[in-house]
Amino acid sequence: MSRVLTLTTDFGSGSGYVAEMKGRLLHARTPFTLVDIAHDLPAHDIRAAAWLVGQACPAFPAGTLHLVVVDPGVGTARRLVWAAIGGQQFLCPDNGLLSWVLRRQPLTAACEITVTADAAATFHGRDVLAPAAMRLLDGMPPEALGPTITDLARLPWPEPQDGAAGLEGEVIHVDAFGNLVTNLPAELWPLVVAAGGLQVGGHLVTTLVRTYGDAAPGTPVVLVGSQGFIEAAVVEGHAAARLGAGRGTRVAIAGGQTP
Amino acid sequence: MSRVLTLTTDFGSGSGYVAEMKGRLLHARTPFTLVDIAHDLPAHDIRAAAWLVGQACPAFPAGTLHLVVVDPGVGTARRLVWAAIGGQQFLCPDNGLLSWVLRRQPLTAACEITVTADAAATFHGRDVLAPAAMRLLDGMPPEALGPTITDLARLPWPEPQDGAAGLEGEVIHVDAFGNLVTNLPAELWPLVVAAGGLQVGGHLVTTLVRTYGDAAPGTPVVLVGSQGFIEAAVVEGHAAARLGAGRGTRVAIAGGQTP
Amino acid sequence: MSRVLTLTTDFGSGSGYVAEMKGRLLHARTPFTLVDIAHDLPAHDIRAAAWLVGQACPAFPAGTLHLVVVDPGVGTARRLVWAAIGGQQFLCPDNGLLSWVLRRQPLTAACEITVTADAAATFHGRDVLAPAAMRLLDGMPPEALGPTITDLARLPWPEPQDGAAGLEGEVIHVDAFGNLVTNLPAELWPLVVAAGGLQVGGHLVTTLVRTYGDAAPGTPVVLVGSQGFIEAAVVEGHAAARLGAGRGTRVAIAGGQTP
Repeated sequence: MSRVLTLTTDFGSGSGYVAEMKGRLLHARTPFTLVDIAHDLPAHDIRAAAWLVGQACPAFPAGTLHLVVVDPGVGTARRLVWAAIGGQQFLCPDNGLLSWVLRRQPLTAACEITVTADAAATFHGRDVLAPAAMRLLDGMPPEALGPTITDLARLPWPEPQDGAAGLEGEVIHVDAFGNLVTNLPAELWPLVVAAGGLQVGGHLVTTLVRTYGDAAPGTPVVLVGSQGFIEAAVVEGHAAARLGAGRGTRVAIAGGQTP
Repeated sequence: MSRVLTLTTDFGSGSGYVAEMKGRLLHARTPFTLVDIAHDLPAHDIRAAAWLVGQACPAFPAGTLHLVVVDPGVGTARRLVWAAIGGQQFLCPDNGLLSWVLRRQPLTAACEITVTADAAATFHGRDVLAPAAMRLLDGMPPEALGPTITDLARLPWPEPQDGAAGLEGEVIHVDAFGNLVTNLPAELWPLVVAAGGLQVGGHLVTTLVRTYGDAAPGTPVVLVGSQGFIEAAVVEGHAAARLGAGRGTRVAIAGGQTP
Repeated sequence: MSRVLTLTTDFGSGSGYVAEMKGRLLHARTPFTLVDIAHDLPAHDIRAAAWLVGQACPAFPAGTLHLVVVDPGVGTARRLVWAAIGGQQFLCPDNGLLSWVLRRQPLTAACEITVTADAAATFHGRDVLAPAAMRLLDGMPPEALGPTITDLARLPWPEPQDGAAGLEGEVIHVDAFGNLVTNLPAELWPLVVAAGGLQVGGHLVTTLVRTYGDAAPGTPVVLVGSQGFIEAAVVEGHAAARLGAGRGTRVAIAGGQTP
C-alpha cells in the first residue's frame, strides 16, 4: 500500500475546514491514501479526541501519519508538535490529544513545529499542520519542522481505586450504540463475576455475558468489550439512555479491591 | 482502477470501531480504493442495511469487495459469510443483510468464514471480517475462508397485494430528503395514473409528476423514483414529516389489482 | 498525486444515492482519488452549498474535478454544466452553486451537458453527472459534453452597505462550532477597532481578539476569521445559540462607512 494519512477533527462532518485541509494535503507529490477517522467529535473536547486517537490510531500500518486537530487554543501559546509513538506518526496541538495513545505505547521522538508569521491565527490545521504533513509525505525529515522536544502534555488517566462502594471506576467513553466503556481493565473481570454484577451509577447490572447477543433484547448486561475494558450495554438497546449514564458516571465492583 | 473495497456499518460516523477496521484493512499489501458507503445506519437495523446494500452495491465495478457489518448477533450462533452475487463480493454476518441484493441478482457462490478462538466475541468486524477482506485483497481464494454453503438468510420481501383499498403496498425506505419509497414497482405507474393518485397512510396524493421540481414547492407529489419504485415526495419539502409517514406506512392504488 | 475528484451533495451522509454515484465513478479506467467534501448540506439549500464550494474547492490542486449536486430542479429546465474556474473544474446543475467561487476567480470556460433520454428524471447526479465525470477522468475533452456557454447562473452577493446603524452587513455562514461568519471583509477590521465592537443582531460584542482562545471561555468575541471575513464567536462556546443568530442575522459597525 502507499503511505496512509488519517484526519481527525472536531470541525463537523462536511465542514469546509476539513475540505480546505484535504485540498492542501493533496498538493503532495507523493501518492497517499487519505482516511477520515472522525470530524464530528464534540467541539473542543480533548478527552473525547484522546480516547478516539488511543483506540483507532495504533490499528494502522506502521508509518501512518495521523493529523489530529481538536484545538481550542489555536493561535495561543500551546505548541504544535510532530510525534512518533509505537511506529505511528502524529501531527497535532500539544494539548493532551496523545495522552491515551501514550498510555499504550512510549514516545519515540517528537519536535515542536515552528509557526511562521503568515499562518492565520485561527486555523493552524490548514496553515501549519496540513503543509507540514504534505512536506513529510514528500520526504522531508521531521527534524526540519522545528526543535526536538522530549515530552508532551498529558491528561491524567482516571485509575480505578478502592472506595466505599468497592473497587471504583468511571465511564470513560460512550460509543454510538450507547455502550458504556469503563476504565476497569478486562483483568478485573473475575472480580465482577465474584461480585455478581457491576454498579453503574444508581443501577446494579447483574447479567454478565460474553457478547451483546447473549441475553434477551432490552436486558442490561456487563461484558468485556473489544477495547480491553469492562463495559455495560443493553442488548439491542442504548445503555447510556436506559441507565441514565454518560462519561464520568461512577461504576463500582462491590467487594472488589485494586489488585 | 485498482480494486475497490466498500464499508457499510451501523457503528456511527466517526466511530473508533470504523477506524480500527480501516487500520486493519490498510495492512493489505495490495493497493485498493477504500469507499465509505454508510456508518450511521440505525443501530441493529438489518432491514435498513439490506435496503442500502441492495441499492448501492450493484452500482460498483465488478470485483468490488463489500464489507457490511450490522451485526446485533455478533459472537452468537449466526454465521459470518463471504458471498459472490452478480459480480460483486460481500463479507458480512448471515443475518439477512444480503436479502435485497439477492432479490436483484442470484447467488453465484458463498462460504462460511471460520472464526478462530482469538477473535473478540464483541467485534467480529475487526477481528474476522477485516482480516478476511485483507487476505482476499492480497489474493487468497475465498474457499480458504471456510466451507462452501449454498444459501443465505433472507428477509421476506413485502410483495404488493390486493386488498380492500385496492392494490396495497407499503413504504420500504425513507431517504434523507424525507421521500417515501414504496414497494410498488415502476411497472404499476399506469395504475396510479388510472386511479388519479396514491393513498399514503391517511393522505390521498393526487399530483402525479415526472420529477420533484414539476410542481410548486410544498406540494405532495407521486412519481416514479430513481430506484425503480413508486415514490411519494413533497416538492422541496419532507414527505415523511408532512404526511406523517415512515417505513411500514401502508400505501394503496385505489381500484388497482396485482398484475 | 493522481487526479482528484471531489463530491458535494445534500443527499445525506450514508445515503445510497451518494454510494450509487461513487459506484458509477469508480468504473473509470483512470486511477483517481475520491474525496468527500460534504453530503449533509441542508436539503435544497443552494446558498449553503455555494458557500462551501467557494470556501473549499479553490484549496485543491489544479485540475481537480468537483462534482456538486444540490439540485432541487432536477429533471426540469435548469441546465447541467461543466465549468473551469481558476484551474478547478466543476460539474453541477446551473442553479447558482458556483456563485461564490466565481466571486473569487473568473470563469475560464463552460459548456452545457447534453442530457440523453435514458437518464432518470429524478437523479441526474447518477445518470448524467457521474458518467460525465468518469469520461472526463478517462480523457474525454469537456467540449464533447455539449455546446459551449459563456455565463452561469449567479446568486447576488450581499454587499455591506451604509445604513442607520453604520456600516451594515449580515451573517453569511454559521460553521459547526456556531461561529458567525459575516460578509464584512477583513479589510474593514480597523473600522471594528475604531467602533470598539460589532453589533450582531441585538447584541453588541466588544471583545476584539486575534484568535478564539484569546479570552475566557464563554466570552463573545469578534475577530478576523480564516475565510478573510469578520467573524463573531464565543470562546469554547456556540455563538449562534448564545447570540440567537443565524444566516441572515444583521450585523453592523457603528459609525462605519463603506470604503
